[in-house]
Amino acid sequence: MDKAVFPGRVRLGMVGGGEGAFIGAVHRHAARLDDRYELVAGALSSTAEASQRSGRALGLDPARIYDSYGQMAKAESAREDGIEAVSIVTPNHMHAPVARAFLEAGIHVICDKPVTTNSADARMLKALAEERGLIFAVTHNYSAYPLVRHAQRMVREGALGQIRVVQVEYAQDWLAEALEQGGQKQAAWRTDPAKAGGGAIGDIGSHAWQLADTIVGAPVEALAAELSSFVPGRVIDDDVQVLLRYAGGARGMLWASQVAPGHANDLRIRVYGSKGGIEWAQQHPNELRWTPLGEPTRIVERGSAAMNAAGARVSRVPAGHTEGYIDAFAALYSEIASHLLARRCANSGAAAGDARFPTIDDGLRGVLFIEAVQASSRAGGVWVSLSD
Amino acid sequence: MDKAVFPGRVRLGMVGGGEGAFIGAVHRHAARLDDRYELVAGALSSTAEASQRSGRALGLDPARIYDSYGQMAKAESAREDGIEAVSIVTPNHMHAPVARAFLEAGIHVICDKPVTTNSADARMLKALAEERGLIFAVTHNYSAYPLVRHAQRMVREGALGQIRVVQVEYAQDWLAEALEQGGQKQAAWRTDPAKAGGGAIGDIGSHAWQLADTIVGAPVEALAAELSSFVPGRVIDDDVQVLLRYAGGARGMLWASQVAPGHANDLRIRVYGSKGGIEWAQQHPNELRWTPLGEPTRIVERGSAAMNAAGARVSRVPAGHTEGYIDAFAALYSEIASHLLARRCANSGAAAGDARFPTIDDGLRGVLFIEAVQASSRAGGVWVSLSD
Amino acid sequence: MDKAVFPGRVRLGMVGGGEGAFIGAVHRHAARLDDRYELVAGALSSTAEASQRSGRALGLDPARIYDSYGQMAKAESAREDGIEAVSIVTPNHMHAPVARAFLEAGIHVICDKPVTTNSADARMLKALAEERGLIFAVTHNYSAYPLVRHAQRMVREGALGQIRVVQVEYAQDWLAEALEQGGQKQAAWRTDPAKAGGGAIGDIGSHAWQLADTIVGAPVEALAAELSSFVPGRVIDDDVQVLLRYAGGARGMLWASQVAPGHANDLRIRVYGSKGGIEWAQQHPNELRWTPLGEPTRIVERGSAAMNAAGARVSRVPAGHTEGYIDAFAALYSEIASHLLARRCANSGAAAGDARFPTIDDGLRGVLFIEAVQASSRAGGVWVSLSD
Amino acid sequence: MDKAVFPGRVRLGMVGGGEGAFIGAVHRHAARLDDRYELVAGALSSTAEASQRSGRALGLDPARIYDSYGQMAKAESAREDGIEAVSIVTPNHMHAPVARAFLEAGIHVICDKPVTTNSADARMLKALAEERGLIFAVTHNYSAYPLVRHAQRMVREGALGQIRVVQVEYAQDWLAEALEQGGQKQAAWRTDPAKAGGGAIGDIGSHAWQLADTIVGAPVEALAAELSSFVPGRVIDDDVQVLLRYAGGARGMLWASQVAPGHANDLRIRVYGSKGGIEWAQQHPNELRWTPLGEPTRIVERGSAAMNAAGARVSRVPAGHTEGYIDAFAALYSEIASHLLARRCANSGAAAGDARFPTIDDGLRGVLFIEAVQASSRAGGVWVSLSD
Repeated sequence: MDKAVFPGRVRLGMVGGGEGAFIGAVHRHAARLDDRYELVAGALSSTAEASQRSGRALGLDPARIYDSYGQMAKAESAREDGIEAVSIVTPNHMHAPVARAFLEAGIHVICDKPVTTNSADARMLKALAEERGLIFAVTHNYSAYPLVRHAQRMVREGALGQIRVVQVEYAQDWLAEALEQGGQKQAAWRTDPAKAGGGAIGDIGSHAWQLADTIVGAPVEALAAELSSFVPGRVIDDDVQVLLRYAGGARGMLWASQVAPGHANDLRIRVYGSKGGIEWAQQHPNELRWTPLGEPTRIVERGSAAMNAAGARVSRVPAGHTEGYIDAFAALYSEIASHLLARRCANSGAAAGDARFPTIDDGLRGVLFIEAVQASSRAGGVWVSLSD
Repeated sequence: MDKAVFPGRVRLGMVGGGEGAFIGAVHRHAARLDDRYELVAGALSSTAEASQRSGRALGLDPARIYDSYGQMAKAESAREDGIEAVSIVTPNHMHAPVARAFLEAGIHVICDKPVTTNSADARMLKALAEERGLIFAVTHNYSAYPLVRHAQRMVREGALGQIRVVQVEYAQDWLAEALEQGGQKQAAWRTDPAKAGGGAIGDIGSHAWQLADTIVGAPVEALAAELSSFVPGRVIDDDVQVLLRYAGGARGMLWASQVAPGHANDLRIRVYGSKGGIEWAQQHPNELRWTPLGEPTRIVERGSAAMNAAGARVSRVPAGHTEGYIDAFAALYSEIASHLLARRCANSGAAAGDARFPTIDDGLRGVLFIEAVQASSRAGGVWVSLSD
Repeated sequence: MDKAVFPGRVRLGMVGGGEGAFIGAVHRHAARLDDRYELVAGALSSTAEASQRSGRALGLDPARIYDSYGQMAKAESAREDGIEAVSIVTPNHMHAPVARAFLEAGIHVICDKPVTTNSADARMLKALAEERGLIFAVTHNYSAYPLVRHAQRMVREGALGQIRVVQVEYAQDWLAEALEQGGQKQAAWRTDPAKAGGGAIGDIGSHAWQLADTIVGAPVEALAAELSSFVPGRVIDDDVQVLLRYAGGARGMLWASQVAPGHANDLRIRVYGSKGGIEWAQQHPNELRWTPLGEPTRIVERGSAAMNAAGARVSRVPAGHTEGYIDAFAALYSEIASHLLARRCANSGAAAGDARFPTIDDGLRGVLFIEAVQASSRAGGVWVSLSD
Repeated sequence: MDKAVFPGRVRLGMVGGGEGAFIGAVHRHAARLDDRYELVAGALSSTAEASQRSGRALGLDPARIYDSYGQMAKAESAREDGIEAVSIVTPNHMHAPVARAFLEAGIHVICDKPVTTNSADARMLKALAEERGLIFAVTHNYSAYPLVRHAQRMVREGALGQIRVVQVEYAQDWLAEALEQGGQKQAAWRTDPAKAGGGAIGDIGSHAWQLADTIVGAPVEALAAELSSFVPGRVIDDDVQVLLRYAGGARGMLWASQVAPGHANDLRIRVYGSKGGIEWAQQHPNELRWTPLGEPTRIVERGSAAMNAAGARVSRVPAGHTEGYIDAFAALYSEIASHLLARRCANSGAAAGDARFPTIDDGLRGVLFIEAVQASSRAGGVWVSLSD
């Protein structure tokens, strides 16, 4: 099969995401939806055989299905039509070595979160990406929902006044029992400290932090945290509760749990300021509740005339036609594509416009947040300062 | 650009869906999401110039961007690598001639709804498709939501007992003012009887009917209807209210409106039987309310363990990660792809499994429903029998 | 026990509402809540013995516990401190003879709905009340919810523009099985045509009609209806579906059902006009959804600054502290009390202000509505005109 | 006016609750609804004149309208038909002296919360009540909602398994601006440390704590808290965030805020255990969400067959007919009345059955909780142990 990629599309590779994986398929859907990427190479599994099987099932050219990420970085950087960017969708502990290999090969990186399992690795990647002048995107996908962008813009423009209180939570129930002891693959690596780097705090707490970070626009200065492991036999946290002090004086609470029956994937945020409050929930992402102080709550619908330009830019279908998880993930990929294509055509004057995405800077800050939470909890829930 | 399509993908063409269109882009997203189609040809606009512009923007081979659908049907059927199926996404009055041309060229058809503007045309297409042995899919997309499939299966298996009452509605507000008088393209053709064939009843009432039809599984035997045109100057219905008598004794009400402020695209259905009731709403499609008689209402979540196999088959992401409009539209396209690919490889024993989609039979029944509603209303809201 | 009633309270009697009754206790709670009535006499049950037992349990003076309503009307009208008003809370077929007896004795009447089982009786009562100059209140309690009053005022003031579409429904599930065959007292009389006068249409359909009537403020001119009896062995309707044509051009649908699993007492109304739409549901009565055309939906909370004076007047606790069924029923009783006390003190210049309540006129119109629905259904669902 | 109180009713007095008060009227509604109390005496305002005016408006015998609470305690204890219990509804700082006066006069006490402004006073009252053998009820009204009682029973019976996580919050927005500077009476005393004893933590945080305490049934062993005063010029906390460690290992978060736009009176609780989770919100008090682990969420409706006996006992109207704030407050008063009447008739064998209510023990524990929160916050959010 001989394929030439339409110039409007980014030539993409993938590491991880083979048979039995979850998030790899999501990245592929996300890359495909707006037709701005074409997946042309991969090292999808940890064994050569599984990698081949996975790659062929996806219709990849067999010559570009690799046995290892190292081989792939080397071979692709040598091709004239080699990949421009790589999506890294392995377990967390592999993010750093894989990203390093591709950055060193001059290839842009799109990496799942948390970007690394420790801040030293994240600092190393940040330095390397800066040195090579490469894009390093971190797929904090929840930041790309249209109404999250809308909320972010509202706060920036002062619609809520001075921010006072932030309540963010991410509740799940899939780890309320010891799935990992039964061999469930997703549960196994996510509850293994060596592979995951953190439990609920890393897997979903980092999303909650980042969602708040996106909207509030001020850094956390200090926190006090309690990590718990409720399920008998579990060696990693499955529940986390944090008090937050934001720069500028806002106070916050963050709760992330994987043992909360009734919540499949319930990420929610509420932000209150001197002039109003907003509420958004990932399980009903097409609505934002907005209350100007002293007035009735408004239901702002995604796609409606009430949505601002920042939200509209990443919105795809009209109001009332719901968008979901893949839509927002795809919006993030499209935002990244705008930058990748602008970079490719920089000499032709192409530009990424207002497109934006979380970078290695955000990734590093997220890892520092995780480490601070872990440090606080280890010390009995004391207050810990954050500084980069 | 020389492209060979991965054999796992259907070679697809499109008629309509060029610049300024809404539903064409949705069909393309839907065809692309699960990577089972590759769009390779198109006659996208009504002028040759616009068609070329639209096709190039999509990365089509310029040789396969056609000035007219007739030219396209002829040329593609002559190519060895010609399209296997065509998606028809024009205004309603063009469905029949376009579909006819492709059926006569031996090409499978995927057509938007209502399939035609009159039942004579629909009967003609049904006969033609049967005669040629071709697939004719009608994109009643709402039938492909996982929880709609789940509900359909529940009813079939008797979980609700004998069906007694059906309440279905589809409310919008975008035509509450005379947009068509301001030149809005979507409003203009949809409120032109010659192009649309019907107003609210055709555009959204037909979806509501079909959603009920999917779940209830019994035909409407008689109806009494009121069509209204509330917006001054409008010559087509913008609100419809119908009483329904189903075979088997159930009684129903159908309301479709484009003048209901507060509803962007609010399709909802409730079905009550002797053993329980269910409720589903398109604006919150990841939840189904189910009440076994005498017990608390359950919230059945898409992707959860409570979803049956019929729902799970068209579901893509885990519970709590929402799916939306494009996900379900893509599920329908994938169901059709399973049949198209099984047909292509029939001699190799490939099969479509449980995949299913609305066909020209459903399309014809939908047009007969619309005609019965119009006949009842014209006669003052009298009861009219339906029989095919 | 010798009691003198505080002059700020109305001296009230009750007929019906003894042991085993439901609505009698509700009327007593309603009369008591705002401390504007004192129950001082009663003929509470159909036997003398049960009546005595019920009366003593309520703390009534034994001398004013009567064996029959006739005896009570006679004795109370003869006392200087006799009752000023009587609450009639018997099964429907007894409303007319009881009300007649008290009107003839010069005593004001507060009567449950439907006011009678036929329009001839309702006309008789209307004539009698007018002739004697007595107050005749009908307890359509749903009209007294603060947000219903708010909505009524909104429509009157034109906030919704020209009313186009009315959707009202009242769904229950308690009669989805044949409770009446098991001897349940409430089910027994409510499904007996001789005692109830109508099934779902009389018991709850009349409430739905009256709620719409309160808010819309225009009469129904014609209707087409289907009454169904779904439960095997039932001789009265348990489901009703009606198309409505309102004076002024609005079109409506009314659904009332007692066989809809998942709905305990689900009265809802939606009204759409050229400038906006509203939605209110009795099961969440402290919120009104209001959508000005083209703007986000607002959640107007009972008790908030956004509630107008008509709503505020019958509201008791601040926003966020919910009011419920008894609160609204009590608000209605207080509205009636304002009129009863104003009447008592007419020479002292007391006035009822803006207080209002459904009267025998509304009661008669309700019975005519029920009769029209029954006539339409008997004739096969034909259109029937309403005129008083 | 000469009145004898029906023996089925408790003779009640009230201190506070005169003109301009909020909670006094609520207590009167609550006492009246189930007809188990008769208000016969009062010292309703801080001046003799206002007290007389308020008492007469309520229809009290002028001889039993007192100028001061001291006078009232003395006079009523001397009457043969004197009050059996007093409701104390003054600002917080007056609770202790008033309660003491009535306890010393041998009169049972029903007191609003927080029971005192410091734990020393609470301990004094507890000792005094025990010494005199008197009932001392604290009106933590939220503990008397039927579904709260249902939830409490569920937890006791192990339906949720081992409790792991508690999330409780009470959000309001009425103090988001400096109302107290404009002379609003309710705002003025509630933001005055001398009169209130605490801001958000005392006024609503104590309710949140008590609601969790009721359901969880295990004490808080330690906490870390942040009190904030966001509104410029305010000298008392208007927001509080607390981490909680419960005996038995559960971890919790408590948030109370009076500066959260969009929340009128939004008290919510979620409790998660090893076998399931529940959620209840005071603004929609007739529904409880219950998720048995691995199964769909159930909506348990107040009044339905799914409600247990503990809930049913304090429920008044059938499912679907909503109960609200006054209903639950009245349920609490009725629970107290059962005890007061059982005490009065102890020699006749009367019993209070399962009736229960928060006592001075709970009141003291609540004050200790408030003091611990204040101590933690003063010390920079450190962990503080609670022990009685």
